[in-house]
This record gives sequence, structure tokens and C-alpha cells, in this order.
Amino acid sequence: MIISMRLHSTKEEIEQVCERIRDFGYKIHAIEGEERVVIGAVGTGDTTACLESVEAMPQVEKAVRISAPYKFVSREYRSERTRVRVDGCEIGGDEFVVMAGPCSVESEKQIMQAAEGVARAGAKLLRGGAFKPRTSPYDFQGMEEEGLKLLAKAKRATGLAIITEVMSDRDVDLVADYADVLQIGARNMQNFALLKTLGKCSRPVLLKRGMSSTIKELLMSAEYVVAHGNPNVILCERGIRTFETVTRNTCDIVAVAVLNELTHLPVILDPSHATGKRSLVPALGRAAVAIGADGLIVEVHPAPEKAMSDGAQSLDMPQFQAMMRSLGPYIDLWKESRVTEAAAAV
Amino acid sequence: MIISMRLHSTKEEIEQVCERIRDFGYKIHAIEGEERVVIGAVGTGDTTACLESVEAMPQVEKAVRISAPYKFVSREYRSERTRVRVDGCEIGGDEFVVMAGPCSVESEKQIMQAAEGVARAGAKLLRGGAFKPRTSPYDFQGMEEEGLKLLAKAKRATGLAIITEVMSDRDVDLVADYADVLQIGARNMQNFALLKTLGKCSRPVLLKRGMSSTIKELLMSAEYVVAHGNPNVILCERGIRTFETVTRNTCDIVAVAVLNELTHLPVILDPSHATGKRSLVPALGRAAVAIGADGLIVEVHPAPEKAMSDGAQSLDMPQFQAMMRSLGPYIDLWKESRVTEAAAAV
Amino acid sequence: MIISMRLHSTKEEIEQVCERIRDFGYKIHAIEGEERVVIGAVGTGDTTACLESVEAMPQVEKAVRISAPYKFVSREYRSERTRVRVDGCEIGGDEFVVMAGPCSVESEKQIMQAAEGVARAGAKLLRGGAFKPRTSPYDFQGMEEEGLKLLAKAKRATGLAIITEVMSDRDVDLVADYADVLQIGARNMQNFALLKTLGKCSRPVLLKRGMSSTIKELLMSAEYVVAHGNPNVILCERGIRTFETVTRNTCDIVAVAVLNELTHLPVILDPSHATGKRSLVPALGRAAVAIGADGLIVEVHPAPEKAMSDGAQSLDMPQFQAMMRSLGPYIDLWKESRVTEAAAAV
Amino acid sequence: MIISMRLHSTKEEIEQVCERIRDFGYKIHAIEGEERVVIGAVGTGDTTACLESVEAMPQVEKAVRISAPYKFVSREYRSERTRVRVDGCEIGGDEFVVMAGPCSVESEKQIMQAAEGVARAGAKLLRGGAFKPRTSPYDFQGMEEEGLKLLAKAKRATGLAIITEVMSDRDVDLVADYADVLQIGARNMQNFALLKTLGKCSRPVLLKRGMSSTIKELLMSAEYVVAHGNPNVILCERGIRTFETVTRNTCDIVAVAVLNELTHLPVILDPSHATGKRSLVPALGRAAVAIGADGLIVEVHPAPEKAMSDGAQSLDMPQFQAMMRSLGPYIDLWKESRVTEAAAAV
Repeated sequence: MIISMRLHSTKEEIEQVCERIRDFGYKIHAIEGEERVVIGAVGTGDTTACLESVEAMPQVEKAVRISAPYKFVSREYRSERTRVRVDGCEIGGDEFVVMAGPCSVESEKQIMQAAEGVARAGAKLLRGGAFKPRTSPYDFQGMEEEGLKLLAKAKRATGLAIITEVMSDRDVDLVADYADVLQIGARNMQNFALLKTLGKCSRPVLLKRGMSSTIKELLMSAEYVVAHGNPNVILCERGIRTFETVTRNTCDIVAVAVLNELTHLPVILDPSHATGKRSLVPALGRAAVAIGADGLIVEVHPAPEKAMSDGAQSLDMPQFQAMMRSLGPYIDLWKESRVTEAAAAV
Repeated sequence: MIISMRLHSTKEEIEQVCERIRDFGYKIHAIEGEERVVIGAVGTGDTTACLESVEAMPQVEKAVRISAPYKFVSREYRSERTRVRVDGCEIGGDEFVVMAGPCSVESEKQIMQAAEGVARAGAKLLRGGAFKPRTSPYDFQGMEEEGLKLLAKAKRATGLAIITEVMSDRDVDLVADYADVLQIGARNMQNFALLKTLGKCSRPVLLKRGMSSTIKELLMSAEYVVAHGNPNVILCERGIRTFETVTRNTCDIVAVAVLNELTHLPVILDPSHATGKRSLVPALGRAAVAIGADGLIVEVHPAPEKAMSDGAQSLDMPQFQAMMRSLGPYIDLWKESRVTEAAAAV
Repeated sequence: MIISMRLHSTKEEIEQVCERIRDFGYKIHAIEGEERVVIGAVGTGDTTACLESVEAMPQVEKAVRISAPYKFVSREYRSERTRVRVDGCEIGGDEFVVMAGPCSVESEKQIMQAAEGVARAGAKLLRGGAFKPRTSPYDFQGMEEEGLKLLAKAKRATGLAIITEVMSDRDVDLVADYADVLQIGARNMQNFALLKTLGKCSRPVLLKRGMSSTIKELLMSAEYVVAHGNPNVILCERGIRTFETVTRNTCDIVAVAVLNELTHLPVILDPSHATGKRSLVPALGRAAVAIGADGLIVEVHPAPEKAMSDGAQSLDMPQFQAMMRSLGPYIDLWKESRVTEAAAAV
Repeated sequence: MIISMRLHSTKEEIEQVCERIRDFGYKIHAIEGEERVVIGAVGTGDTTACLESVEAMPQVEKAVRISAPYKFVSREYRSERTRVRVDGCEIGGDEFVVMAGPCSVESEKQIMQAAEGVARAGAKLLRGGAFKPRTSPYDFQGMEEEGLKLLAKAKRATGLAIITEVMSDRDVDLVADYADVLQIGARNMQNFALLKTLGKCSRPVLLKRGMSSTIKELLMSAEYVVAHGNPNVILCERGIRTFETVTRNTCDIVAVAVLNELTHLPVILDPSHATGKRSLVPALGRAAVAIGADGLIVEVHPAPEKAMSDGAQSLDMPQFQAMMRSLGPYIDLWKESRVTEAAAAV
């Protein structure tokens, strides 16, 4: 922790600040510059509390944290990749995993068609929302438990594992009864009551980045889940909100590479929400493989123009099959690089 | 609803789109331009569903909503201002209302000192968090029910009404037992499970704008609460997230004026979170009065440098008193303009 | 300057970094933390060059500047406000100065009507573009020198000083022949060739904040002009680009208060570009007075619906007169606070 | 063009708006909805002028453009890709083109080493700045003409074509004497005086996207150059400014795919400025190939830690060679897809 004093601070003011820092259990190193004094604080106290306290002192110009505020999710804590085991596959391991399916579960026919189609094309998990976060109270809010039952049925028919969203800590147990992976949507990335409850859940969690959340905040939210007991967290980049409106969001694809440096958790990408436009999904999917994501989550609907939500960004079955085929040679290169990486680590 | 077809669409493609729109109960007006066909859809069907459906059709370039997607909260639905009655005062009425207090309830002594101080300076509500949304799982998470009890005690001692945050639909009943106004934090503005529960609650709700939420999304979230049964919603601008980092957030002060045009709900401003810096709070408070906000919510702590959260943006008691004095002549002008407005409406 | 080393850096690596820093003329203070080493560098060398050099070293985690990168424009360099004298008035002094007029000079009749109208209502400067930065090459690009001549004519008729935009270093001399203040538009805030030329010009400069420029970058651009010889710079907040689209830009009104802390240069606000919508201009104008701006620049047109640019955000004459009247009592409070400030400084 | 009237507009008000639109040469189609009237305007008049004029009318709610505001750069104007010929190669054709070199030309030794290194690794153009846009007036501003001469020397020695930045319309002729491609930096994307001058220049232009410019604004700036006579424009995505600060900018990689749909001009990506961090450059480079960019521009320096600018994002020679090798198999896939595309177009 580095504290920079205001210009012309008196010795007394500097000593007051040092006193406060020592109260938090830190050792002090003061550096007298030409213009101002800078204080280095070294130790293992409660950094946030100390930072906020000294920042509130009028003689302090600014206080900067040096160490990362997360621990369990960092590469420094664990250098090898976390492999999250889901019924039938492993995310973060040797396979590039595709999750696919409709935005919402709408009917038995729709979800069964979707499941069969995406399984045939090579997806390993079926996505589909039963509880839907909708901006308007007048929009379709999901089939709720009825939808979960249909997902379970689709699983029995196809062998696909199920990933679906949970929106309230109240629903975690219910959704965990049906789903293999619990998805936390972008709007709930900082729903801390929900994150704590997920920490006590035995299912893996897919945590989507909030649309105005920084990469560090995403890691802090993952840290909530892990610190509360659940190490199986998968991160997901799905686009952030910027001034650009041609696409639904702006895909921060470099976040995948940054996260690969900072954390051992697997990272996947959602090209459907990141673009909002069907025609852009396959190209972004290829880029995600090339940059080293661990998988994709893609919206696919048997009849997008009849979808109750997100139709414009959903692929139909032939489009999804074509996309999977076009990803093939890129996934081959991806596997080679994982082998090289593993060899280098030995 | 206006649908613009791609260039060179065939008659057949256009007819398919028209067919789809009619299925949703709309009437069709097609306009043949020099380059492309534009379709106007008129009616009272489910606009979102229809929009998403036609947008998903490959021959459609884009589809634009013309009517506002909210109803109950709009000025068109109700032209006169909503006055939200809280124990002892009215927000949205003839008085400019200041809410003040610490970020977190930390101890009996702290909250009693804070309450007495802000009451003496002219605040009408006491703010203080018992459930705290913190980015890090290792930061102070609030005193929970114990904190609520201390707030109730401060209310008995000072007569101030209480506003405090609720973070989960599970806690709404508990918090409503103690608080006069339930605060929804920026991170929960689109926690739809929570919004629905608040719709069934009898307490007024203060809804803070999400840090990357548009003004329209804020209104849609308010619409959730109102449509589910609770008309007493107060909106709050507290700064949005932008590229600028000198301040904690960027205060979109014009949002206050925009909301005054679009909705009848009261709008207040939070100059503490909007700036993150104590020295900027009073100046922004004056600007908020001048632009026509209905009130302020301000962080005040008896000893900011000892605060467990948000110390750098908290005023101490003398600073808050000075701010309240400096607001005085601006509030006088504010009252005059409300009288003029009321006279004009007759 | 503070340099934080990567975890587990060796003594040798640390010494290499220290060596590099010393090469730039700094003294070194190393702090050994529990986890990593932090190096403080003290001195008066070329900070940017040194920062960039050490940041490029693989063993360095990050390097942070402590001192501000600007000098002449800082409050620390000069504590009293700079008063920019323009023909007939002073910006940054005891008067709140309003500049007003059309977006573009379109004809003699239009600019004369505008000039007479805004003069009568109390404006001190006439604005009007002769060189227009337009997003599209097919839009009206301005009357160029012909427009400058009409501005000069309007000045002779009304006594108003003239402010108009210059877009290229090639045109600085020409525009300076006619204008009292040279305006640099948001898109040219970092046109460094232009800034350098303005440094050698004898006219005051109004520097508008770029739509994605930070407050510090605005100050750095002002520093360019001042360091190249021209101390008469007026800063202007005109809204930044964010995700919100209801308004044309998002007015960062707090920037005015921040700039008042960081610099001695005068700061005005442009409520027309900040909102893009006529109905919001007067309310934002009041807020700008309340937060302590030194003036306003407002788009006014005798017939906004016939304007060749920016009609939707232009006030007509009766609207501008009404706005000026409504600002009156706020300006009275503004003057009182300037008197108080001056008394306190003695 | 679609104009939506305010609620409860009178017949007279609607007729006034229609009259105005007809004055601009459009035909009118009015649609009477349940709540409001919407007017479709069809024709080939000056859309911007008409839009701005009707938007300025008080009875108009909003006015929306349907047709794209650019013409020559659109795919609709020209469906096949533009191939920009530069000495020795073609951008937008059958080869993936890499441009590489240091941020600034610093000395003969440095630029010659850089040129030989990048040529050997497979680059086709040498980049290097002689005129440098620097945020601070105290930073290194470039070697100017001296630097251009060194670039010419490096070209003679290696056969690489030269790309270098021009910052003022005054310098266009000078820079064009030495460079094969003129680069327009992000800060000058809307320097319209410069764009017009480039339109009359015979050299190809590389136009970098402004850091807060939309994709449509980038196309409009390209339209300036093309409409003024120069069809050889290459677009470049180099990251936009968002709230995320872990990377220097946020790479909007999807912009490449969007531009491929909207324009026939070639599009390259700058992974160095997009990330600001050396370790992220190769991964982003691979993603750029996979998404279909036409090339890359990469910062490479013989000794990054001694660079006078941008050292932290510059690769050294072995790193650049490794990157080029790792791109190989992705470029092979890229070529296959171009062949497939060409075959499909026949």
C-alpha cells in the first residue's frame, strides 16, 4: 500500500497518517521526495479498511493498493488451470467445450428439438433459461420450475448436461436440483447475497461478467463464491457496455487473455450476447478459440424468428452446424497449444 | 413500431414480415422508399415480443420502438408529480428533503451521534447501511439485524425517518419492519426478483440508478415495482461509470432534468457516491438543487477517517452543517420555482 | 514515481530496475514488503520517459506517477484565478460571462439578428462557426472567411466580442484577425499541431474537452498552449461520450468543481452540446452557475428550425431571454460567493 | 427518414412538419397510430439538413435516419473488396499483411535494426513515427523530417514499404515524399481539415479509429477521404476507451467483422495499442487473423526498455519472431477462407 501525502504536509500531519497505518498492523517506510512525502505500508492487515481510512484523512492525496485484492482465484495462489468437471465433460481441461441452446425454454417441443440439434452438432451442454431477467415487467419472464423439468427431460433424451440461470438466492436449491451448472447473469454479478449462497452449493457456477464490471471486479465476485466454499467457478466474457451501438455490447475479447494471466479458473465467451447479431457470432467464435478461451456458450433456436427472446442473435440449426464445422481446424490448433503448454509446465 | 427492410428485399420477403407483424395484432403501413421499404406497425400488441421476432428475420435491417416501453411511471400516464409520504415529510412535494448519515451502521455510539448531528443540521431522514454490498468478500459486510435495531433506536431518539438498503428478496420483510424507506442499491437496480418482492411491500422504495444503466432502464425497473403494486418509488441519480477516473463515478446531473420530463416520480441525487470525494459534495449538492432535484442523500460520519467504509466521501458534522447552510438560499429559489410551477398547472 | 516489482523478483532483477531509474537522474528508496518489493524514485528527471522505460522491463509489475504531469496550469503553480481579458469583459473574474449565438454563421441577416438578440438579453460574446467540423463530408461545412467577415460586422453593430472555431493550424492567423477568442472544438482537443500554433498566438483560446478525454488530458492540452507561450486559456466542459443516448452527451458537471481545485484557469460550460436538447438547456445552465462555473456558451438561433446545424439544441430568442432572466438570482448568489472567496484569500 | 410526432399533436402541427419535409424534396407517408402519428419521408434530398431541421421543431418527438449516411465506402456501392496496392504488396487481397516497427524513429541504428529484424520475420511494411502525438508537451515529440529520412534509408536497405503518421494538413506533402502509406492517428480521425487534404493525396491512407468513435463515424471519416478523391483507405481498429483500465484500451474486435459487412475497404488491427501490454499482443494477433482482419500493425523495438515511447507494449525481436511463427497456421486457415469466399462470389 502506497500513500501519497498532499504537497506541503507538515511533519505532524505525516506522523498522524503513519500512526493510523500502524494501528492497522502495518510497518511504515516514508520516502521524502522533492515535492511531497510518500509512505509505503508493508504488512498483512486488512488492506481495504486501512486504505479507506487513510484516504478519508484530509492531508492524504491518494492511497494505492499494490497487492491484488483477491487470493484464492489468483494464479499466484494456484498456478495450474482449474478443471471444472461437469457431467460428461471437463471445462478448463483438454477439450474446448461448447454450450448451446435457446435463450428461454418455451415448450417441450422447442427444447427437445434444440437439444437434439445442438447435441448432434457437437455441443456438450444444453443452455436454456427458465427464470429470465427481463428489462420490462411486461416481457416473458420464463417458465420457471416447469422449464427446469423440461430441461431435465431434454437431458435424459440427449445426455447433454444442463446449464441454466438462477436469479435469487431463494431459488438456488431448486435450480440445483435440475441443473449441472448454475449460471449467474451479468446483472447479478454483484448480487452478493446470491454469490454467498452459491458458495455453499455443490454445483459448478458460471459467472458472467457484468456489463460495466471490470475484470478485477469479476475476479472479486468469483472470490466470493470460492471463499464461501465452492471452488468450481467458470468465468464468462459476454461483452461490456460502451458508447458503440452497432453491436448489442462490445466484446472485450482481450479479457480472456488477461484472465488467463491472472486466474487459474476457466474462461468461456458468449458470442451471442457480445454481438447481439446472428451474422457476427461464428466469426467471434473463431476468434475466441484463437485467443485461448476454454469454451463458448451460444444461443441456438430451432426457429429464431419465433423465439420469445433474443431471436436476432440466435443461430438456427443449420447455422450452428456450419459454425461448429468452421471451428474445427481452430480447435485443432487450440488442442496443440494446450499440449505444448502442458509440456512446458513439466 | 417501425421496421426497415434490407435493400433489395423481394415482395415475398416483405409480405412474410408483414404477416408476422399481423400475427401479433398490429396493422401494417408499408412505405416504399427509393432504396428500401419501411413498414409501420400500429396497434396495442406485445411490442417487445413482436420487435424481437421481426428483428430475428433475416430480411429485416432493423426494428425500432416508437412508444415508450413503460406506462405507469410516465408523465403521459400521470401529469402531476407523485408525492411520496414518509414519516414526517413528503418527497416530491413542496419541501426539498435531505437524507443523511453514515455509509454503514457501525456501533450504537456512532449511529446516535450521526443521527443527532444530521437532525440538528436539518436532515429529515437518517441513512445507514445494515446490509452492505461490498466488492470484496473480505470487507465489512454490515451489522445486519443488529444494525437495523440501532437505526430504530436512533429514530426514537431523534424523530428522523429511516432509509436503509435491502439486498435480497429474502430480507424485504425484515428490513421493512425497521425502515421507513427501502433503498435498492445501484448493483441491484436490475435484480428483478427483488423488484417484484418490493412491489408487494407497503414501504416506499428508493431506487438507485445502476452504474451502467440508462435512464430508460431505470424507469423500467421502477415500472417493475409499480406494476407489481407499489406506487411509492423515489428515483436516485448517483453517478454512472465512464472512462473518467478522477471522480469515483460521473454524475449525470442532466438525468434529473430528463426524468422530470419523462416521469412523475420524485428524483433525488447522491453527491457522495457521484463524486467519491468529500470536497466536491457541497458544490454538487447546490447544482442538484438548482437543476430541480427533489432532495439529496448525503454520507455523513462523526469521524470519517474512522469509518468502516466510504470515509473519503463522507462529510463530518461541521462540514455537513456548513453545506446545509450554503444550500439555504438555493432551496429558497427552488421553493419559488415549485410555487410558480404549481400556479402554472392550475 | 512508485515502481512495484513482480512477485518473487530476484535481487539482481531489482538492481537492474534501480540502475535504470538512476540513469534518469532519480534517487532510489526500496521498500521490501511481505510479498514484493516496491521502489520509490525521487527527483526531477523526465518522468514520462523514465516511467515508460521501466514499465517496459519484464520484471516490473506497474509504475505509477505521483506528481501531476502538468505544471503551468496547476493551482500549485499559481493559486489565484487567472482572469482572461476579452474585449469588454473578463472571464474568470467577478462577472459570470455568457457567450451565445448560432452554431453556424449562415447569412448576414441571420447573424445580425442573432447578435442583436443575444446582446439585448445580456450576452457578452457572440459565438458562431465559420469553419464547421461535420461528421459527414456532405453536410454544410461553414462559410469560412465570408463568415468571419459577417461576425466582424456583427461585432461592429453590437459591441459583442467574437468567439469562433479554428480547425487547422493553417487557419490560426486568419481566424485571429477577426475573432477575440479562438475556440478549439472537442475533436481537436488533442490536435497537437494546432495547440502548438495557438501557443504563439496573441488571442485567448477556449479549449473544449474532447468527448472521451479525461480531465487530466484536458489540462495537458491546456499546458501545451501555455507552455508554448499563451497563458490565456479558458476551459470548457461540453459533455462526454457514455453509453447513455437520451442526451447527446453526458454532462460531467463535477468536472467544473474538480478543475476549480486543480487549475487556476477559468472554466465554462456548454449546456447545448452537453444535452443536445433545447428543453434541458436552461436547467443545466442554472446548475452550472450553482457549481461555480465562470460562464456559459449557449447555442441561440433566430429560427432554430431553419438552422443549418444543431437546431434541436438551439434556443430561440424568447427562450434565451427567459433563460437569462431565470439565471439572474443564481448569478447573484454566484457573485456573493466570489466576494466571500476573495475575502478569505486576503 | 422516419419522424415520430409528440403525443396529442394537432393536425395543424403535423401539417407544418410535413410542409418542412416537403421543402427538402421528400415525399410524405403519414401513419396514424393509436397514440401518435409517425411520418415516413422518402426521397433523395439532403438527409442531415432535413433531419436536423425537423428535430428542431417543438412538436417532433424524434427523427431517425434509415439509410446509411455514407456512400462510396459502403458494400452496397461496391460489393467486392478494395485491394490497396502498396510498394511490394496488396492490403485487402490474398495475403495477410503485417506492418511492424517501433513507436518512434529514435536514431539510425535503432530504425535500421528494427527494419532488418521485422523484415526477416516476415513483415511487409515498416512502421515508425517521425511526428508524434504526445499527451504532454514535455514528452519526446519525434525527429520530424530527420526521422522521415531515416525511414527512407531503412526502406532502401530492406525493401520494406514505409508507413508513418502525419498530424497536420500542413505536413501532408512532406510526409508523402517519404512514406508509402500515410497513417492518421486515433486523435486525428475527425481532423476534417487533414482528411480533406488527404483526399487530394496520391498515397494510400491508414485511418485509425478514434478512441471514442463509433464504427459509423469511422466510415464517415473514410468517406471524407474517398469523396475528396482518394479511394485507397485502410481502416484500423486499435481499441476504444471504456471504463476498463487493466488494458490500455478495450479492443472492439467485433468491429472487424462489422466493417467486413458494411464496407469494401480493408481492415487491419493494432494489437499493441489495443492492449498496451506486450504479453497480450500475440494472442490478440491470432484472434485478429481468425476473425478475418486483413493485417496487423505491431509495435516492435530492438530494445523496448530503452524505447522513448510505448516500450511496455513493444515486442523485442525474438518475441516478434515467435509471434510471426505462431500466426502461421492461422494465416493458412485465413487464406483458405479467402479462396472459399472468392469461389463463392463467382
